Amino acid sequence: MQSETLQEFLVDELKDLYSAEKQILKALPKMAKKASSKELRAAFESHLKETEKQVERLETIFEELEESPRGKKCAGMEGLLEEGKEIMEENADEPEILDVGMIAAAQRVEHYEIAGYGCARTYAQLLGLDEAARLLDETLEEEKAADIKLTQIAEKVNVEAAEAA
Amino acid sequence: MQSETLQEFLVDELKDLYSAEKQILKALPKMAKKASSKELRAAFESHLKETEKQVERLETIFEELEESPRGKKCAGMEGLLEEGKEIMEENADEPEILDVGMIAAAQRVEHYEIAGYGCARTYAQLLGLDEAARLLDETLEEEKAADIKLTQIAEKVNVEAAEAA
Repeated sequence: MQSETLQEFLVDELKDLYSAEKQILKALPKMAKKASSKELRAAFESHLKETEKQVERLETIFEELEESPRGKKCAGMEGLLEEGKEIMEENADEPEILDVGMIAAAQRVEHYEIAGYGCARTYAQLLGLDEAARLLDETLEEEKAADIKLTQIAEKVNVEAAEAA
Repeated sequence: MQSETLQEFLVDELKDLYSAEKQILKALPKMAKKASSKELRAAFESHLKETEKQVERLETIFEELEESPRGKKCAGMEGLLEEGKEIMEENADEPEILDVGMIAAAQRVEHYEIAGYGCARTYAQLLGLDEAARLLDETLEEEKAADIKLTQIAEKVNVEAAEAA
């Protein structure tokens, strides 16, 4: 029986993150289009550009490891985006709540990535894959910053929604 | 057309978290049973007890709001647990990697809850639902502590897996 080493597990996790990022690339333009808050729309648009770079970083790591990025569909991200879609459908006619809901969905996505990149970065460090660890850490820091940015926007958007109630 | 207020959205989010917790209650005993690290098994078992209390807190809030906790299936948690199940199946014969993988899956679950409870707590605060906000904050702090605990256990488990490779 083939035993899976930590490096093989890292590759699995990277494939999972690659699939997650690809799914996010499709979802973000739809979310930006539906955002009422200009700040929120700008945040989604800027995170889209960041996500494109994060995909490139993963591709660099796969090349370095001589592995293919393909072959996995991230079930976790699929569920999170399904949930986000539900929120967008249920609140389609209520722009203020729609913004609140899209932030809630996006923060779940960011937190998924914080957990995922945090683990992958640690495995890469332990395996002595220094360049991969550095690239994963770069993305991790961007995800954390994106989450903080969403919290800042939420402070305004949530208050407006509470006042509109 | 019925417009959804922030309080209605909060109730939706609480239903979502209630469904998520119920799913976690089913998954944790299976994860505890499969853990090789005693510390990890103990952490899953103690988080199971914590989760039971978190469910009770949500029930208290639903009573206060005169709403039912039922009626939603959390698609996000479903995806995350599906992913955890895949990891457990793929690494069933490799106990060290299985522990690493279960920690990775559990940290995604914790991060989901950190994002979810963080948002719900903030909505409750804005709506002046002080007791609900206090209970949600209590759970939020437990989820953050559970995530930190997992990182601490991972420090040992990951090193063992790297050395076994």
